[in-house]
Amino acid sequence: MRMRYSLRSLIVACGVTVAVAVPATGARAQDSLRLASPDGRNEVVVGVRDGFLWYAVRHEGKPIITPSRLGFAFRGAPTLFDSLRITDSTRATYDTTWTQPWGEVARVRDHHNELRVTVAETKAPMRKFTVAFRAFEDGVAFRYELPEQQALGDFEIMDELTEYTLARDAKAWFTKATVPKPDRYEMLYESAPASILDTVNAPLTLEMQDGPTVVLHEANLVDYAGIQFRGGPEQNRTLRIALPAWGDGVKVRGRTPFVTPWRTIQIADRPGDLHPQVLTLKLNPPSVLTGDLSWIKPMKYIGIWWGMHINTMTWSSGPKHGATTANTERYMDFAAKNGFGGVLVEGWNIGWDGDWYSNGNVFSFTKPYPDFDIAAIVKHGAAEGVGLIAHNETAMGIQNYERQIDSAFTMYEALGIHGLKTGYVGDYTLEGHHHHHSQYMVRHYRHVMELAAQHHIMLVAHEPIMDTGERRTYPNMMSREGSRGMEYNAWGGEGGNPPEHETTLFFTRMVAGPMDFTPGIFDLQIKRPTGTPRGPNDSRPRTTLAKQLALYVVIYAPLQMAADLPENYEGQPAFQFIRDVKTDWDTTRVLDGKIGDYVVVARKERGGPQWFVGGITDENGRTLDVPLSFLPKGKSYVAEIYADGPKAHYLDNPLPVTISKRTVTSATTLRMVLAPGGGQAIRIRPAK
Amino acid sequence: MRMRYSLRSLIVACGVTVAVAVPATGARAQDSLRLASPDGRNEVVVGVRDGFLWYAVRHEGKPIITPSRLGFAFRGAPTLFDSLRITDSTRATYDTTWTQPWGEVARVRDHHNELRVTVAETKAPMRKFTVAFRAFEDGVAFRYELPEQQALGDFEIMDELTEYTLARDAKAWFTKATVPKPDRYEMLYESAPASILDTVNAPLTLEMQDGPTVVLHEANLVDYAGIQFRGGPEQNRTLRIALPAWGDGVKVRGRTPFVTPWRTIQIADRPGDLHPQVLTLKLNPPSVLTGDLSWIKPMKYIGIWWGMHINTMTWSSGPKHGATTANTERYMDFAAKNGFGGVLVEGWNIGWDGDWYSNGNVFSFTKPYPDFDIAAIVKHGAAEGVGLIAHNETAMGIQNYERQIDSAFTMYEALGIHGLKTGYVGDYTLEGHHHHHSQYMVRHYRHVMELAAQHHIMLVAHEPIMDTGERRTYPNMMSREGSRGMEYNAWGGEGGNPPEHETTLFFTRMVAGPMDFTPGIFDLQIKRPTGTPRGPNDSRPRTTLAKQLALYVVIYAPLQMAADLPENYEGQPAFQFIRDVKTDWDTTRVLDGKIGDYVVVARKERGGPQWFVGGITDENGRTLDVPLSFLPKGKSYVAEIYADGPKAHYLDNPLPVTISKRTVTSATTLRMVLAPGGGQAIRIRPAK
Repeated sequence: MRMRYSLRSLIVACGVTVAVAVPATGARAQDSLRLASPDGRNEVVVGVRDGFLWYAVRHEGKPIITPSRLGFAFRGAPTLFDSLRITDSTRATYDTTWTQPWGEVARVRDHHNELRVTVAETKAPMRKFTVAFRAFEDGVAFRYELPEQQALGDFEIMDELTEYTLARDAKAWFTKATVPKPDRYEMLYESAPASILDTVNAPLTLEMQDGPTVVLHEANLVDYAGIQFRGGPEQNRTLRIALPAWGDGVKVRGRTPFVTPWRTIQIADRPGDLHPQVLTLKLNPPSVLTGDLSWIKPMKYIGIWWGMHINTMTWSSGPKHGATTANTERYMDFAAKNGFGGVLVEGWNIGWDGDWYSNGNVFSFTKPYPDFDIAAIVKHGAAEGVGLIAHNETAMGIQNYERQIDSAFTMYEALGIHGLKTGYVGDYTLEGHHHHHSQYMVRHYRHVMELAAQHHIMLVAHEPIMDTGERRTYPNMMSREGSRGMEYNAWGGEGGNPPEHETTLFFTRMVAGPMDFTPGIFDLQIKRPTGTPRGPNDSRPRTTLAKQLALYVVIYAPLQMAADLPENYEGQPAFQFIRDVKTDWDTTRVLDGKIGDYVVVARKERGGPQWFVGGITDENGRTLDVPLSFLPKGKSYVAEIYADGPKAHYLDNPLPVTISKRTVTSATTLRMVLAPGGGQAIRIRPAK
Repeated sequence: MRMRYSLRSLIVACGVTVAVAVPATGARAQDSLRLASPDGRNEVVVGVRDGFLWYAVRHEGKPIITPSRLGFAFRGAPTLFDSLRITDSTRATYDTTWTQPWGEVARVRDHHNELRVTVAETKAPMRKFTVAFRAFEDGVAFRYELPEQQALGDFEIMDELTEYTLARDAKAWFTKATVPKPDRYEMLYESAPASILDTVNAPLTLEMQDGPTVVLHEANLVDYAGIQFRGGPEQNRTLRIALPAWGDGVKVRGRTPFVTPWRTIQIADRPGDLHPQVLTLKLNPPSVLTGDLSWIKPMKYIGIWWGMHINTMTWSSGPKHGATTANTERYMDFAAKNGFGGVLVEGWNIGWDGDWYSNGNVFSFTKPYPDFDIAAIVKHGAAEGVGLIAHNETAMGIQNYERQIDSAFTMYEALGIHGLKTGYVGDYTLEGHHHHHSQYMVRHYRHVMELAAQHHIMLVAHEPIMDTGERRTYPNMMSREGSRGMEYNAWGGEGGNPPEHETTLFFTRMVAGPMDFTPGIFDLQIKRPTGTPRGPNDSRPRTTLAKQLALYVVIYAPLQMAADLPENYEGQPAFQFIRDVKTDWDTTRVLDGKIGDYVVVARKERGGPQWFVGGITDENGRTLDVPLSFLPKGKSYVAEIYADGPKAHYLDNPLPVTISKRTVTSATTLRMVLAPGGGQAIRIRPAK
């Protein structure tokens, strides 16, 4: 028995328990305000009880969040939380539709109702703030607005007191935020009842008992700490926000007038309906980029990178240096021959020698190694339509980077480089010990994104702050890492990503936005140079080859890599799928899926008639029926199917792929047979 | 990217990495010793390299545990770990078969090979110890033996340095041991890759990539701290043992000669093969109880208990006191009428008034409340063949309990009470602040078990130390709690046990041994007294009624409760299954199952021809084909089927049960349709 906890948790929950009664027992009108989405399915109720401002959320009449409190704790000022009254409220409706420059879907409609509730303290210092709530068909969101006022000017937030009390327990899918250390979101996924969570990263996916699936995240993170969620300490259903800190422990510094990021509660009847995720886009301002934007273009790319991870090349100078002129031009020729738009090169710039992850104050971002003739390389590529994608690893030496960034970006632009991958390996900044996801770092990433836009540079950030929809405002912010990508299959004590990894990733990390996962390893048993210490249980991709192809459809990225060495693609019939697949989409449909088990996604190319379908599974083989009813009726198509071959298995027989063609129509149902750790990739093109 | 961790973990793992090479590259014969199970499927390899004693485990030639080190850290003495050499080894084979007094299975065969390896330090103080390894068809086990010697007499173990380096990553199913606090194993289950575990409870179930399923646990815990496992701090596949401490931080006190508990590694090709678990029984000594053991008898029982959890009764004295003479005799009459062997009564003894969980020094274990005439009650029950099951809650006041226990048990025996449920709510002992699972507490539980045997008392322990097979030696040790049982559905902030709870429990907690889960709630929406504050998302059993029935087959307990109030069984046709089901088994077969999703179990009654089948599912409804091929060929049976009724659903329609009969044979395949959160219970009796 566990009575002791039970009795104590009743006491702990008392303040909320009282508030819970409000909406349920028919509160007086002035006690609560209601806001519904235009389609009526999502509803927010807001009120004040016993001095606490609370909100609640319902979906189709069913409680999702029961009354949960809102407020702040400051350094050097009283908590703004427990002595509030509503002084004003206003309402509005918005309906906007726009075409995206690129994305998982071409058109987005933002149709929502808004309720702005202003509260003031009933005692000194009589501070006030507004919470803006928005109700959409795909969820709800709210943010705090702190107006300029006598009693609240400069402030230091020590804790945002936002609560999310789940109406029922939920199965949470998450990565830990704090154990063993921050780790840039690069932990393996876990699942646990939401009622016993520690501190976890965003986005947080919650399969509520008896549905729906809810994702907690944030949007329009501009000048704040990145969001995390924490449960406990006792078992209960109230989650709270945790904010990574500056070196001195302050979470957020600001001055009124000030707005927080939007706190988003995405709601989907089934997990597959989480995609395409456009809620965070609707909560970011429209694009600020004008003029000729032809330098922003989705593409596939290859790179001098995987060789360093499997020890056939080095980032550092020396006999195995990967970033040489000859090697890069070889990659560019391969790219040109196969329709890839860019070649990433890591290790091209001075600073990689020695213990590079301690070189945060050593890296140059303008000086290439002597064996890398950057101007000649860019020119070589330009002649065949292939761009150089530069690379900047900071190793968290932020000051060193910021001192050089303006001249570096000026140089890249002058050379004609329009793509850049950044890197931030490390848990804290070298100067000031600010947390990797702190407000200090959020400001830095934002600065880099804005500066890159000015210099016509598409940005891919590794070890990023999580995507909160910035790409709507800055369409040069292409994609990010922010989870365990392919590289984990090259090394690491735990044997690489487990086979269910991508089936969880799709419903968690991918809900935030595009990911630079870097799929496409064909040498799945990884030929490594002699002498490298490896054993029978080494890290390597725990997928079949067909699953590697399917990842091009399942994992969305506008800049999508073919990660393996060019020589590993030569003579491989399956490579044709990577040549054919697109990276920009008109339509996205999740046909079927279960978090952590499998998923099947169909996407239609932007500006063309082709569809691509990708299905992946975890360690269990399975057979799925895939109706092609998404195709236009009455038209005939050819499906080019890349399926797991006979006896394919991710562990000991990953390579067999069976390639076949068949005529299909919207009436066809394909039987998709997936091997353990397998996948299937399908190109559907109009019959000639 | 995460290179920094990768490089560091290689360094950390260096000592082991070297050892890894030993078995793989063809070590010299004197470097390692091999031990195989009699059927050859499980193999242990043992050796010394660089002064470290290591062991490794293989299953059908496939690595399970790669070389992992063994040793101890002491207080006030050097670590016994890193300067070892093998001085001796011996081998033996054992083959024993015995009939259990009761159990999941009637007969157990213990057929194993043993290898004893003695090591000594190569430097002062030249201590020595032996590790005994045993290889069985269902797993392997080892224990340390510390012989009497000059340099090792009295000792204080601060850390047992046993490692378990998994050959591949695994999906771990576990409860946290330390977050938010010890919690007597009563946390919700989580799953995570084994490579990122914190500290978790035993038994620990590991679904290894590409199989098999492995359970880490211990056996024959007599005078040691209860085992826990810890991962990290970096992501890797090495688990270590964590031991709860005495109040002064020491983990284990002892004096040579001394043996540790067996460290068990149960290995099953599929999760269902974990049952019936007899590995820990084989590692405990045979029964020490002799003479007339008719006082030990498996049975079903009811109790004055659930009423306190749903607030219709109180433990404490007053108008709602549950433990009254009249109430108990009413329960006894109901028990007699329906074939139950006992009535548990909680709150019968002085000490429950006020804040009872702080009453650890107040409880009397001999003095009943004035409205409970214990002698008359026992006499009333005896006349109709129903025993009183006493109850002793200690609230961790161990000293208070130990002072009274001898006279209490003497009194119970004199009255004719042969059953006792104990309780240990609290995280630490009131005196000395010893951890709930510390060696101090292990000694206490053992003392109670032995004393109960002397007084002919069957014991059911709540808030126990986990089962490590003691029931073989003391068959009066019937069952335990040790996870979240039915009571969590009566209260608690997280809304009760989630619907997948029992589908996980079966493959985790239940692998240790019988559990006093207390199934059988029929009033699934729980009628509570007016005025008790409850809301629409209150705790209540998140199962259908048919699933409640199925739990009698799925969850094994020799003393099995029908937990609901007697009045809630009146007039219920489904109650007939509880009347019919048995609690002692000749044979147990897990027909199908997936951890956390569903399970179907068939059990044959002891001493009779009947079979019982129980199937349960998580929140997903599903249809399973259940072949009855376990029945003897050529015989005709009647299956009495208790199935989820039309539109049954654990959340809003839990009650419909459809009862039907059909004739079946060993050639029949039943189609088992389970509702969301549902179940099915089947009695199969010979056709007349």
